[in-house]
Amino acid sequence: MLDTSLRPHVASASAGSARVKAVYHVAGTADQIGVRAEAIAVEQSVEMPVAAITDRTVLEEIVGRVEDIRDLGNGVFEVHVGLAAATTGLEPGQLLNMLFGNTSIHSDVVLHDAIFPDEILAALGGPRQGLPGWRTRSGATNRAMTCSALKPQGLGARELATIAGKLARGGIDFIKDDHGLADQRYSPFAERVPRIAELVHAARAGEGGKTGYLPSLSGNLDQIRRQIEIVRTAGLDAVLIAPMVTGLATFHTVVRENPDIAFMAHPAMAGAGRIAPPFLLGKLFRLMGADATVFPNHGGRFGYSSDTCHALAEAALSPLGGLTSTVPVPAGGMTPNRVKEMLQFYGNDVMLLIGGGLLAAGARMIEETALFVQTVAQHAHE
Amino acid sequence: MLDTSLRPHVASASAGSARVKAVYHVAGTADQIGVRAEAIAVEQSVEMPVAAITDRTVLEEIVGRVEDIRDLGNGVFEVHVGLAAATTGLEPGQLLNMLFGNTSIHSDVVLHDAIFPDEILAALGGPRQGLPGWRTRSGATNRAMTCSALKPQGLGARELATIAGKLARGGIDFIKDDHGLADQRYSPFAERVPRIAELVHAARAGEGGKTGYLPSLSGNLDQIRRQIEIVRTAGLDAVLIAPMVTGLATFHTVVRENPDIAFMAHPAMAGAGRIAPPFLLGKLFRLMGADATVFPNHGGRFGYSSDTCHALAEAALSPLGGLTSTVPVPAGGMTPNRVKEMLQFYGNDVMLLIGGGLLAAGARMIEETALFVQTVAQHAHE
Repeated sequence: MLDTSLRPHVASASAGSARVKAVYHVAGTADQIGVRAEAIAVEQSVEMPVAAITDRTVLEEIVGRVEDIRDLGNGVFEVHVGLAAATTGLEPGQLLNMLFGNTSIHSDVVLHDAIFPDEILAALGGPRQGLPGWRTRSGATNRAMTCSALKPQGLGARELATIAGKLARGGIDFIKDDHGLADQRYSPFAERVPRIAELVHAARAGEGGKTGYLPSLSGNLDQIRRQIEIVRTAGLDAVLIAPMVTGLATFHTVVRENPDIAFMAHPAMAGAGRIAPPFLLGKLFRLMGADATVFPNHGGRFGYSSDTCHALAEAALSPLGGLTSTVPVPAGGMTPNRVKEMLQFYGNDVMLLIGGGLLAAGARMIEETALFVQTVAQHAHE
Repeated sequence: MLDTSLRPHVASASAGSARVKAVYHVAGTADQIGVRAEAIAVEQSVEMPVAAITDRTVLEEIVGRVEDIRDLGNGVFEVHVGLAAATTGLEPGQLLNMLFGNTSIHSDVVLHDAIFPDEILAALGGPRQGLPGWRTRSGATNRAMTCSALKPQGLGARELATIAGKLARGGIDFIKDDHGLADQRYSPFAERVPRIAELVHAARAGEGGKTGYLPSLSGNLDQIRRQIEIVRTAGLDAVLIAPMVTGLATFHTVVRENPDIAFMAHPAMAGAGRIAPPFLLGKLFRLMGADATVFPNHGGRFGYSSDTCHALAEAALSPLGGLTSTVPVPAGGMTPNRVKEMLQFYGNDVMLLIGGGLLAAGARMIEETALFVQTVAQHAHE
């Protein structure tokens, strides 16, 4: 019953029945994993006793199919389930629902990965800007890119703009809103964004460089559309968004509606451990259209390992159908003294994000920022 | 540094600075929990070194405040953090972001509960229909209500309608779409919903009873609005939605736009263990406006304990500001032979949901449904 090696792709039974291969890591025992795997395949497809299904098409083309089981050791098994692409309706939320909706409630299962058929890659489409879009925006053609974050929330638009101006004068490539900046009364979006954009622009005027400012989108689809209008009016062309807060459908919709805007995804509400970070923040956010993806670098405030970070960056950058790339943005308690090591680890196809580590410099914020920028520039390709 | 008993409410420092009290369960040791608690309070508010903040208003009114720490034993501590209500912008997604956004990435922390100030309860508003709305719709004034689910996906609209007609003829109060039914090519929403509504209506015609049909909403806000128009045109007044799939903002928006429609929330993507189910499915979904909340009953296909189920039902029904109630809908592998026990456990302010357990009856589906309905009716209050 139990395979101990991965079989390569199992061809779909018939045309018109493309499958998403969902890869789960399941805690269990060798004598029970076969039954457990079948239960997952049923839960994530028809969600009812298969014996009670009489329709032959449903049985052949819709019921989830266990395609492989592999013993990973330590009581963990990798289970491959073929889920009918047709059940997703080619819609972002429903895709997530079919991959992990009910099974997210089972604590013995982690959604480790999914391999998407061309039909889904084409329908969802992935990033529009990707690595080239960020390089064009920053002019950083042969080096890693730099980024910082505007904090703390609670400040007014004027105070935030002052901080942004200093970071820009230090020569940083991008400044993103803290993901906690939304549309609060102490710095409403409509007031904050034009003011910050203006000071950031002014800070670089005349010296040839450019700093991009990424406002953080929040709220429902109507509100986010209005925010994007404000972004455009302010002359900006990139934004921050937390897809697991807004919902994947909202995220994907605004990506498709705004192909000329670069989207940086934030991992808020992305949880720990139940969906593997390389899949969620690397591959799935990329499928939905993230042009850059922020994640906690190893050795910072969060618990990702260096292996996880490596796999995440690879999922964001490596070939995936015809989709363009998503730029990895390691962050989360990074400091200027880690820059060289991070560049060695990630190479130059990366955007380094240091937030609090620059803000903490106080009166020396411009100089610290400039040092960060110079260190990255020194690692440019010849 | 460490309190071992809960202090009662700590009054806010000043007017205009209402706090959400977030309650986390944190794995740790007695000598480190104080520092860890402070780190959570910072992560979920300003997210930068507090020493680098010079603005007095931010320090006093915005930085998260550890209000209590209690040793729960077994290496788990309950940490109460006061988060400024102002940081939520009174917006659903941002509320979740401030409660658990970045901390969801830390595997040592569970979001256990939150106590909302009146400002947030009033702004988000909760259910519009609640228990009374479901009782009016079903005519079940003095007993528990019954519900089943339409499955399996993959069937066409005609076949699903046939199944729904049988469940209705058995006298069930409500039939909901399986949460996997979205807008797939084999049963498009616009075709499925009117057809099922018609057969469900016809099945009860002339006998005085009524069965409600709840289509499952999916997609982005535009798509869901169009689906609600189809629901209304079909003469229906209740729907199913999975808030963690659509995003809380989309969910809350359609609730507020449709006060006359009853919303049943589905727990898909609600995860396991990292947000306590009584808080997420009971209190938070209620705050956002769920009129009923589906959850896995103990002893079914999922791992919730009877204590969790009891707490969840209590969170849905017990007084919460001025908000009306959310009806608990225990489900997930329930069968007719568990009905009496479930009624003893939950009482009559409940809707019992049996899906596959009725569908598996095949040719005897109508009779099994009628037996389910009769058993519940026998437990009516005098």
